[in-house]
Amino acid sequence: MSATGLISKSLSRVRAMVAEAAGRNREPSVRTLERIRQQLRECAEGRGGEVSTRQRAARLADTYLSLDDGGRLAFLRIIALEFGPDPAKVASAHKAYQAAIGTDRQWDSEAALRAAMRSQRLRILTQFNAIPQGVKFLVDLRADLLRFLADEPLLKPLDRELEARLAAWFDVGFLELARITWNSPAALLEKLVQYEAVHEIRSWRDLKNRLDSDRRCYAFFHPRMPLEPLIFVEVALVEELADNVQKLLDENAPVADPARASAAIFYSISNTQAGLRGVSFGNFLLKRVVEDLQRDYPRLHTFATLSPIPGLVGWMRRHPEQLAEAFTPNDWKRLAALGIEGPDAPALRALLSAPREAMADTQLQRALREPLLRVAAYYLLNAARDGKPVDPVARFHLGNGARVERLNWLADTADKGHEQSWGMMVNYLYDPDRIEANLESFASEGRVDASASVRRLARR
Amino acid sequence: MSATGLISKSLSRVRAMVAEAAGRNREPSVRTLERIRQQLRECAEGRGGEVSTRQRAARLADTYLSLDDGGRLAFLRIIALEFGPDPAKVASAHKAYQAAIGTDRQWDSEAALRAAMRSQRLRILTQFNAIPQGVKFLVDLRADLLRFLADEPLLKPLDRELEARLAAWFDVGFLELARITWNSPAALLEKLVQYEAVHEIRSWRDLKNRLDSDRRCYAFFHPRMPLEPLIFVEVALVEELADNVQKLLDENAPVADPARASAAIFYSISNTQAGLRGVSFGNFLLKRVVEDLQRDYPRLHTFATLSPIPGLVGWMRRHPEQLAEAFTPNDWKRLAALGIEGPDAPALRALLSAPREAMADTQLQRALREPLLRVAAYYLLNAARDGKPVDPVARFHLGNGARVERLNWLADTADKGHEQSWGMMVNYLYDPDRIEANLESFASEGRVDASASVRRLARR
Amino acid sequence: MSATGLISKSLSRVRAMVAEAAGRNREPSVRTLERIRQQLRECAEGRGGEVSTRQRAARLADTYLSLDDGGRLAFLRIIALEFGPDPAKVASAHKAYQAAIGTDRQWDSEAALRAAMRSQRLRILTQFNAIPQGVKFLVDLRADLLRFLADEPLLKPLDRELEARLAAWFDVGFLELARITWNSPAALLEKLVQYEAVHEIRSWRDLKNRLDSDRRCYAFFHPRMPLEPLIFVEVALVEELADNVQKLLDENAPVADPARASAAIFYSISNTQAGLRGVSFGNFLLKRVVEDLQRDYPRLHTFATLSPIPGLVGWMRRHPEQLAEAFTPNDWKRLAALGIEGPDAPALRALLSAPREAMADTQLQRALREPLLRVAAYYLLNAARDGKPVDPVARFHLGNGARVERLNWLADTADKGHEQSWGMMVNYLYDPDRIEANLESFASEGRVDASASVRRLARR
Amino acid sequence: MSATGLISKSLSRVRAMVAEAAGRNREPSVRTLERIRQQLRECAEGRGGEVSTRQRAARLADTYLSLDDGGRLAFLRIIALEFGPDPAKVASAHKAYQAAIGTDRQWDSEAALRAAMRSQRLRILTQFNAIPQGVKFLVDLRADLLRFLADEPLLKPLDRELEARLAAWFDVGFLELARITWNSPAALLEKLVQYEAVHEIRSWRDLKNRLDSDRRCYAFFHPRMPLEPLIFVEVALVEELADNVQKLLDENAPVADPARASAAIFYSISNTQAGLRGVSFGNFLLKRVVEDLQRDYPRLHTFATLSPIPGLVGWMRRHPEQLAEAFTPNDWKRLAALGIEGPDAPALRALLSAPREAMADTQLQRALREPLLRVAAYYLLNAARDGKPVDPVARFHLGNGARVERLNWLADTADKGHEQSWGMMVNYLYDPDRIEANLESFASEGRVDASASVRRLARR
Repeated sequence: MSATGLISKSLSRVRAMVAEAAGRNREPSVRTLERIRQQLRECAEGRGGEVSTRQRAARLADTYLSLDDGGRLAFLRIIALEFGPDPAKVASAHKAYQAAIGTDRQWDSEAALRAAMRSQRLRILTQFNAIPQGVKFLVDLRADLLRFLADEPLLKPLDRELEARLAAWFDVGFLELARITWNSPAALLEKLVQYEAVHEIRSWRDLKNRLDSDRRCYAFFHPRMPLEPLIFVEVALVEELADNVQKLLDENAPVADPARASAAIFYSISNTQAGLRGVSFGNFLLKRVVEDLQRDYPRLHTFATLSPIPGLVGWMRRHPEQLAEAFTPNDWKRLAALGIEGPDAPALRALLSAPREAMADTQLQRALREPLLRVAAYYLLNAARDGKPVDPVARFHLGNGARVERLNWLADTADKGHEQSWGMMVNYLYDPDRIEANLESFASEGRVDASASVRRLARR
Repeated sequence: MSATGLISKSLSRVRAMVAEAAGRNREPSVRTLERIRQQLRECAEGRGGEVSTRQRAARLADTYLSLDDGGRLAFLRIIALEFGPDPAKVASAHKAYQAAIGTDRQWDSEAALRAAMRSQRLRILTQFNAIPQGVKFLVDLRADLLRFLADEPLLKPLDRELEARLAAWFDVGFLELARITWNSPAALLEKLVQYEAVHEIRSWRDLKNRLDSDRRCYAFFHPRMPLEPLIFVEVALVEELADNVQKLLDENAPVADPARASAAIFYSISNTQAGLRGVSFGNFLLKRVVEDLQRDYPRLHTFATLSPIPGLVGWMRRHPEQLAEAFTPNDWKRLAALGIEGPDAPALRALLSAPREAMADTQLQRALREPLLRVAAYYLLNAARDGKPVDPVARFHLGNGARVERLNWLADTADKGHEQSWGMMVNYLYDPDRIEANLESFASEGRVDASASVRRLARR
Repeated sequence: MSATGLISKSLSRVRAMVAEAAGRNREPSVRTLERIRQQLRECAEGRGGEVSTRQRAARLADTYLSLDDGGRLAFLRIIALEFGPDPAKVASAHKAYQAAIGTDRQWDSEAALRAAMRSQRLRILTQFNAIPQGVKFLVDLRADLLRFLADEPLLKPLDRELEARLAAWFDVGFLELARITWNSPAALLEKLVQYEAVHEIRSWRDLKNRLDSDRRCYAFFHPRMPLEPLIFVEVALVEELADNVQKLLDENAPVADPARASAAIFYSISNTQAGLRGVSFGNFLLKRVVEDLQRDYPRLHTFATLSPIPGLVGWMRRHPEQLAEAFTPNDWKRLAALGIEGPDAPALRALLSAPREAMADTQLQRALREPLLRVAAYYLLNAARDGKPVDPVARFHLGNGARVERLNWLADTADKGHEQSWGMMVNYLYDPDRIEANLESFASEGRVDASASVRRLARR
Repeated sequence: MSATGLISKSLSRVRAMVAEAAGRNREPSVRTLERIRQQLRECAEGRGGEVSTRQRAARLADTYLSLDDGGRLAFLRIIALEFGPDPAKVASAHKAYQAAIGTDRQWDSEAALRAAMRSQRLRILTQFNAIPQGVKFLVDLRADLLRFLADEPLLKPLDRELEARLAAWFDVGFLELARITWNSPAALLEKLVQYEAVHEIRSWRDLKNRLDSDRRCYAFFHPRMPLEPLIFVEVALVEELADNVQKLLDENAPVADPARASAAIFYSISNTQAGLRGVSFGNFLLKRVVEDLQRDYPRLHTFATLSPIPGLVGWMRRHPEQLAEAFTPNDWKRLAALGIEGPDAPALRALLSAPREAMADTQLQRALREPLLRVAAYYLLNAARDGKPVDPVARFHLGNGARVERLNWLADTADKGHEQSWGMMVNYLYDPDRIEANLESFASEGRVDASASVRRLARR
C-alpha cells in the first residue's frame, strides 16, 4: 500500500473538487445568501453568553463547511464587504483625532479612532475559537481565502485582519518545539507523510528510516492544534557535508553512530499550513534545532541543508541568454565532440526539456557539469526580484542567515530533481557565529553570503 | 507559621515599596532616560533575527525590572508618547481611504489606513513574548500601567493596545480548565494561598480542607503561564443551599459524602492577575465548572454562590436616607425597647461604625435583622451606576446570568464580613436553564433576576 | 510494502535460525563452556555492590545473546544442573524440620528448610533485572528455555523456578490496562502488527481500520516493559452478534456509530510473550475490558467473541468415526444427489484435504452445512483431554467463564479458516452475570456452558 | 500550625493505641476467630475467577483493618500456623527427592519437593495485590507482623515468606528514581514531612527551604505505590564539606548558586516503610543520585554525608571503661582546672546525663573536645557486633562503600544531637572510585575505610 494512500482527503475538499469539475462552483441561491447573511449578523451582534456564542459559532462553521467553493467565496465576500468599518464614523473619529494632536485629548482620540477602525469581521471570525478545533478551522478558512484572493482583491482587508490575528495567536513565543520520533503517535506521523513537501515519504518503512537513531525530526506545534505540526525539519547526522539526497533517503543504508557525526544536514523543511502564509517561524525553528543538537552532540560543528533549487530550470527557460553565457568556447568544444554544435544550438535548448536523458549519457553529463554549475551559482547569487533571490528556497535560507556553501552535481536524481534543476542541489550553511550578521546584512542590503568556491563559479 | 508568611513578595515590588517610603519614586536621571530611549528604539527597529530580538528583549526586561516606580512610569510614558502612530501619515492614509470609498481601491486603502494606525508600541511589547516568562512579564507590566493610569491618562492608548493584544492571547479558546487538588504541585497551591481574595487561607491545613473530597477547586490556566492560575473558584458539595461561610471553612467539620450532595456552592472566586483587567473569563469558568460537576455528580441540581456584599456598608454611609427608609415604625418600636430612639437616631448611625458589637447583642441583632435584610435586598436590586449594580460582586454574577436567590443573616461573622455588610451574605443562583436568558436581558436592559422572597424584601 | 515486512526479526533469532540450518547448533567448545561457567560462578557469588552486579549481569547477557542455540542450551544446562540446591544440606535441614514438628522449633526449622531449598539459579537470573531491558531479556530467555524443554527435561526445575519468579513479577496487580489507538506510538503499533496471532494485520491501513472509532483495542503492559503489550484484544462495536470475520476486517466498510452499538465483539486476542507461558492474565483482561466498555457505552449488552476453532479439522482427522456419526441418512441422501456415496465414502475423507474447493461448490456446501455444524458443536462440547476441552481457544474462553453461544457457517473464508475448521467460527458469550458461576463449575467439574441451539446440534 | 500537625495518624493506628491503653488488645472472641478462619480458608482455596478473588480479598482486608492489635495477632497466627506446608507431604516428597539424586528423576523430584514446601500462606497474602492499594496494605501488614514478631516467634516462617515475596516485588529493577521538588504534589510532600526520620521538618517553610535551588531531594518509588516514597535522601549543594547541620537547615541562610558547588552533602536519608525491613535499596539510591548529580553539575567532586552518630552515648553508657581510656592525663589536667577531678570522676559520668549543659560551658566544652572526638572515632572504627559496626548509620554507609572521612565537633546542637552523640556528627565520604572496593572488603573482611585523621584519633 502506498503511504499517501493512507490519507483521506477531507470530504469537503473532495466535494469542492467534484463540484468544480461539474461547473457547480457558482454563486449560491439568493435564499442561501440570505441565510448566511442572517447568521453572520447574529454572530456580529454577539448577543448572550458563551453558550449562545458557541452554538452560533458551531452552526456557522457547519454552514461554511457545507458550502462548495462558490458558496464559500460568497460567504467570505459578505464578511469582507458588509462587516467592515463605517467610513463615516472613521471620518469623524479621524477629524477629532487630528484636532486633538498636541492637546491632552490626543490620547483619548487615538484610542477612539482605533475603535472606529475596529471592524466586526474579526469579531465574527474569532468566535470560531470557542468551538473545538476552532483554530484549525480558521487556519483552513484562511487557506480558502488565499486561494480566492487572486481573483477577488476585495477580500484583501479581511485577509489582512485575519493574518494579523493569526500572527498574534501563532507568535513564536506560544509555539512548542518537539522532537518527532518513531515513538510519536501514529496519527502525528501520518501527518508528516501527508505534509512532506520536499522529498515524498513513500512508505512507513521510509518514514521509520527518517526517524532512525542517526536522524532527527523536529516540529513546531501550537497548544490548540495538537498532533498538527506547523513546520517540520528532517535532519541527518552524518560524517561530512552531504552531497546526494538519494543516499540520505536510502532505507538500506547502514545506520550511522550519531555520537561520531560532525555534520547535521537539514534535508527537508516543510511548512504545512497554507492558511498561515505570512506568519513566519522557520527562522526560529532552525535556530532552536541547532541549539538542541549542539547540546546533545557536542561534536557537531557543521549545520547545513541539502536543498533543492526549485526555480532554476524555469528561470533558465525565461532567460535563455543566461544559459548561453555560461558556456565557454571550451565547453562548446567538448559538446561539439558529442555532436552538439554551438553556441546557442537548438540542441542545447532541447536539453531543457529532457534533463533525465541528458544526464543518462555519461559523456554528455560530464560536459554539461561545469557550465551548468556556473549557471546555478549565478542564479542563486544574482537572480533577484524586489531585491530578494528569485528562488524561494534560497530566499528562505538566506533570509534566515545562511550562506550558499556548495553546489552538488548529480545530487538529486529523482525525476523532480532533474526537472527542477538538472539534478543539482545546494548546501546552505548555518554557521552559528555568522547567522545574525548575515541575516542583518541580507535584510538591510540584500547581501548574499556565499563561499569562495560558489562565488568563483558565479563569476563569468 | 502563618501560611501567608510563606509568600515572598517579589523583590522588585518590595524595592518599589521601600523606594516609595523613602520618597525616591522620582523621575529617573536624564542619562537613564536616554539609555531607556535608546533601548526602546532598537527594539522598535527590530533589526536582526530571533537571537538579537531575544537578547534585546531580555536586556530591556532587565532594565524595566531594575527601575523603581518613578523609572517605570517614565519608561511607559516614553513608549506611549514616542512610539505612537504618525498623525501626518494617518491623515494622508485617511484621505486616500475616504476618497476610495465606493471604488475598487476602497479595500486596499482600508488596509493602508489600518497599517498607518499600527504603532511601534505593540511591536516593542510583543518582543517580550520571546523571553521565558515573557507573557507573565507583560501581564505584570500592565498591572503597573493600570496603577499609573489614574494619574497619567497619557498612558491610555498604550493600555488600550496592550489590553487588545492580551485579550487576543488570553482568548478563552486558549485557556485550559484544570482541577486543583491536594495532588497538585505545592508551587501551585502556594499561589492559591497568595491569590485567594475572598476568604483568606490561613494555613496549609485550611488549604487541605478546601481540597478535601467534598470540595472542588477549578482554575483556568494559560499554556504559557504554567502553575499560575488566572482565576479560580472553590466549590463545596453540600446537602442544601449554604447559609454560613464559617461553617463551610470549618476545618474540623466532618467530611461529607459528595455522592449525596444536591448543591454545589461556589464560595470563593478570585481573579489573580491584576494585569488582565478587562479580559474576561469568569463567565466561561463557571459554565465549564457546572458542566464538569453535572457529569461527575448527576444528583446535583443546585448551583449557587455564597457571596459577600462588599459594597453594602460603604454605600449605606453615602446614602443614609436609604437606611432610614428601611426601618418601619414597628422596627423603631422594637429598637426603642432597647434604648435606641428613632427614627434617624444618631444611635443608628453609631451602629455603622461598630457592627461587630451591635451583632454581639442578641436582642439588638434580632431587632436589626428585618430592616437590614430589607436594606441589603434594596441595595442589590436597585443601587446602580451606569445601569449596572454598584456592588462589584453582584455585577459579576448578574452579568454572568445568575439571579439573586436568598439573603443570609449572620452568614459571615468574621471582621471583614461585619465591616462590609453587617455579616450578611447572598446566594446567587446559577440555574443552567435560565443563565442565557438572564445574561441576555441583563446585558440589553439591565434587568436583574431575583427570587420572590428577595424581591419582596426589596419592596418598601 | 507489506506491513509485516516492517518487522525486523531480532538479529539473534535470525542467527539461531541460520545456524540451525547449517547444523551448527552444537555443544560449544570446552573453552567457551569454561568461560560461561566462570561467569555464572561470579554471578552466583554476588560479590560487591550494585555497580559490580550490573556490570556482571550486562556481560553475562552479552555472552548469552552471542551464543547460538547450542550454546544457549549448554548455558542453561549449566545453570540448571550446577547451581541447584545441595541435596546433603536439604537432607539435614529436612531431618531437623521433621524432628521439630510439634515443638517450638518447628517454625525456625521450616524457614531453614526453605533456605536450604533456595538455589543459586534464581540469584543468577534475577541479576538481569538490574540491566536496562532486563525483564524483557529474562522473558525471552524463558522462551528459549521452553523451546529446549521438550528435548531436555533436565531444564525443568530451572523452568519452574523462573516461572514462579515471573509469575510474582507479572502478578495482575502490577499490570496496567491501556487502550491502544491511532494516537499510540508507532513503535507500539508496530508491535501489534508483529504479534497479532489470529488475523494477520496486512498493512498500516488495515491497522488503522482496526483502531477506528467503532473499534477498541486494549492491552496489558508491565511497568518495566513499556511499548511491549503482553496480551491484547481487538474489539468491534456492532449492532448484533457478528457472524463473519471478513466483514469485520473489511477496510472499506463504513464506520459505524459506536454509541448505537449493542454488541462488543472480541474478534482477536493475542498473547505476545512466549516466555510468559503459564503466567495467566487473559481472564483478567477481558473482565477489565468489559467494565471499561460498559462505562463508556451503557447501551452495550452483548459481550462475545468471534473465535476460530483451530483444532477442529485436525481432531476430525484423528477421529474419522465422529465425522461419520454426524451424517444422518438424510444428509447422505443429499450428498448422493451430488455424486457422493455414503456412508463413510472415501469422497468424504477427500473433503478433509480440500475444504476450500468443497465450499466453493454451492450445492455441496449447503449439503455439508448441517452435518459439519453438528460435528463442530460436538467437538466443542465433548472433545476433552484431562477433563478440559481439546480446542485451545475453547479451553481459554470456557476457563474464563464464557459460554458457547453460536456456531457460524462460512464465517472465515480465508485459507487458514478453511484449513482449521472448514470456515466455521464460534461466538463465545461473556455474560457478566454468569461469568463467575461458569468459571467455577468449569474449574471444579469441567462443566461447559452452551446455548440451547448449540447443545441441540451437539446431540446425536 | 506545626507541619507535623498536618498528619492525621491512620484511624486504625489510633484505635489500636486507644485499645492498648484500655487493655483491650486481647485475643478476639471464639466467634470472631471462627469467622476469620472461615474467610482465610476461602481465600486459600481460591475458587472462582478474578471477581470472586477481588471481592474476597477486599472483605478480608476490611476484616483485618477492623481488628485491634489482639485481633490482628490472632489473624496472623492463624495464617502462620494453619496454612503452612504439610509435614507428611514434605517428608514423602523429600524421600523421593533424595532417592532420585543422580538419576533422571532428580529434576522432577526437586520441583515436586519445592511444590510440597509451597504453603497456602503466600497464596492468601498475594490475593491482596488484586485490590487497589493492595501492595501498600501488604507492606503495612508486614509492619504489624514485625511488631508482633518479638513476642511471637511462631510468626517467623510467615514473615520469611512475606519478606521473600516483597523482595521480589520491590526488586531495585522495578523502582523508579524521582526528584522531589517544590513542584511535586502536596500529597507527596506531606509524606516527606511525615517520614523524615533524621532532622524533623518543622513547617512547610522548612520543607520549601529543603527543596530550594541549592538543594536536591530524591526518592525511590514503586509503580504500585504512587506518592509513597520508599526511601528518600536530602542533598545540599555547597562549597565545602559541611560541618554543621543547623547551618544546612537554616531557612534564613542565603540560597547558594548550585553551579558553583563542589560538594554534595547527603544530610538526611530516611527509610519510610517499616514493612520493608530486610528489603534493601539504600545502596542503589545513593549510587543513582551521585550519577544524576555528576551529570547535572560536572564541578561536583565531593559526595559525602553529614550523619548523626545515634548509638554513641548509649554505647558509652554500656562501656564506661572506653570513655575513661579516651582521657589522657593532659585532658584530666584541663578538666581539673575546671573543677572536675579524675580519672573516672563521677563528674564525668554526670556529663553523660546533661550533655547540653556541659556544652553550654565554653571552657568545659573545649576541654572535652579532643577526648570525646577520640571516643567517637574509636566507636565508629572499632565498636562492632557480628563483625559489623554497632552504630546503625555507620553500618549502612560503610556497607554501601563509604569511608569515615571527618568527625565534626558542635555539629548538631539540637537536643537530639546532644543526647545521641554530644553534638558530634560524622561525614561519610562516597568516593565514586573507591565505593566498589570498599564495599567488597567491608562485606568480606569487615574492613572499615577511614581517613588518616580519623584513624589517628581512634588510635590510643
